[in-house]
Amino acid sequence: MRAVTIANDKLSVEDHPDPTPGAGECLVRVRAAGLNGADMMQRRGAYPAPPGAPQDIPGLELAGEVIDRGPGASRFELGDRVMGIVAGGGQAALAVVHERILMPVPDNLDWPEAGGLPEVFTTAHDGVFTQAGLRSGERLLVHGGAGGVGTAAIQLGRAAGARVTATVRNPDHHSRVAKLGAEVIAPEGFEDHGPFDVILELVGAPNLSGNLQALGFWGRIMVIGISAGAKAELNLGLAMQKRARILNSTLRPRPLEEKAMTARAMERSVLPLLASGAIHVPIAATYPLEDAVAAYERFGEGGKLGKIVLTMGG
Amino acid sequence: MRAVTIANDKLSVEDHPDPTPGAGECLVRVRAAGLNGADMMQRRGAYPAPPGAPQDIPGLELAGEVIDRGPGASRFELGDRVMGIVAGGGQAALAVVHERILMPVPDNLDWPEAGGLPEVFTTAHDGVFTQAGLRSGERLLVHGGAGGVGTAAIQLGRAAGARVTATVRNPDHHSRVAKLGAEVIAPEGFEDHGPFDVILELVGAPNLSGNLQALGFWGRIMVIGISAGAKAELNLGLAMQKRARILNSTLRPRPLEEKAMTARAMERSVLPLLASGAIHVPIAATYPLEDAVAAYERFGEGGKLGKIVLTMGG
Repeated sequence: MRAVTIANDKLSVEDHPDPTPGAGECLVRVRAAGLNGADMMQRRGAYPAPPGAPQDIPGLELAGEVIDRGPGASRFELGDRVMGIVAGGGQAALAVVHERILMPVPDNLDWPEAGGLPEVFTTAHDGVFTQAGLRSGERLLVHGGAGGVGTAAIQLGRAAGARVTATVRNPDHHSRVAKLGAEVIAPEGFEDHGPFDVILELVGAPNLSGNLQALGFWGRIMVIGISAGAKAELNLGLAMQKRARILNSTLRPRPLEEKAMTARAMERSVLPLLASGAIHVPIAATYPLEDAVAAYERFGEGGKLGKIVLTMGG
Repeated sequence: MRAVTIANDKLSVEDHPDPTPGAGECLVRVRAAGLNGADMMQRRGAYPAPPGAPQDIPGLELAGEVIDRGPGASRFELGDRVMGIVAGGGQAALAVVHERILMPVPDNLDWPEAGGLPEVFTTAHDGVFTQAGLRSGERLLVHGGAGGVGTAAIQLGRAAGARVTATVRNPDHHSRVAKLGAEVIAPEGFEDHGPFDVILELVGAPNLSGNLQALGFWGRIMVIGISAGAKAELNLGLAMQKRARILNSTLRPRPLEEKAMTARAMERSVLPLLASGAIHVPIAATYPLEDAVAAYERFGEGGKLGKIVLTMGG
């Protein structure tokens, strides 16, 4: 099979042996696979795939059709449209995925949407709801509202009855992010717009002190992105006064059973919203698998709003 | 009535008007009232009482008999032995306390035990269980294991089936803290004793970096004491890898309904353990109310293990 390949920090599209589904696994003919920030880090050698995942094929999400099943796999039939997060190996013509972390694709979604949603929507839903426990009527601040996880979090927060504010650095994106349901503000001076109940941190440590300032009592700061920096001073005295909770998380290294839990939460809470059209997957561009190098370059340039997705076959 | 009095950072025992119970409140003839670190801070002018609490009478906990009830108060009968946390005013011959934050005193407890337990056991139970969610089989690290909250947390953790480690600076206290059910270690090098599921921080910011190092996956750092310092650098990258949760809390400024919730949690989970003798309240010394200055001096010297409690009447 053909697959995006990272070897010695060089990206190319190469032939690989076809994978074989093991116990409980589906062999998926991949039709679309989104790019994510983690792929860029992995390309630079900064984010190796966890043990058990393909080490040289990037890709944290995919959508496609089940074309074979390993022993005991019974959740899906051959031909079913499925999607899911994977620990690696998603950007390939074929992938084996445990059936417990696959989800059915709603009928109204096309392949690029299905292949570009699992990582960002699972990350956003897990962070904002499962972990930070956002509730109807609460105020959510999303740092980095124009990014993939940011646009997902804004839509999910709004759909759940929260009031959503988002920081967006690029003024060109303000109106489009606002249309997703957020009050959009510039990052500078965000701390004056609180108090917020939940703050989703997708930018990094430089925001930490302002986040604590802008947080309400019993507020939660959910840290899942730190591209702007990892280390910052924390004032525990102020944190105690606010009964603040600083939650930190990453999805990729979690074991199968925890990823399966996130897939069930997606099926319960997010797929119905996608199926009804209440929320959608912004797509910036699609590239055929063979043009993966160009897709990575486009991703690296930044400034996009929406997912960049590789498409395979058809 | 007589009461410990703080005026212009000077401590004395003075006459005050008798308080009158309002709607839902009990008038309590106080028999014992523990001293806490917060009293020392308030004496120095560093921790003013929250609005609504007596400003010049310290004391965050008390035990005594109900001698009058305001309109609508019906949880307790006259003569009932009660105890509870208060936002201030506990170190007096009389106190008015809302009935929802009072708890019945188990028969086997004497007055100094009852007057010295509400603050530290409520703080420990709320932090370790209600907030940090310690579960049977998990490992708990208590920083400052010889203090009031520390000795309470060790006993509660042990009684709930957790494995408890405690740092204790004073070697003279190691064996007595060990008898409460903890593996006792010196503070130096504690980070090599992990991984811990819950770390109760009663010392301060200098431990933060080591706490993160010693934390297991999905571990919780519960910060409720920062006498050794409030500010420290936090490595969000390491925190994300561990899916760490940094919870911060203080009990005193919470509104009535939240304090009432802590009292119900105490009645459900802690009072049965006190009544059965499974856990107990270490008392270092008792002083009559009129000797409050000496009691505060003793508290300020440190080096004690167990509560210092003022006693009134009888």
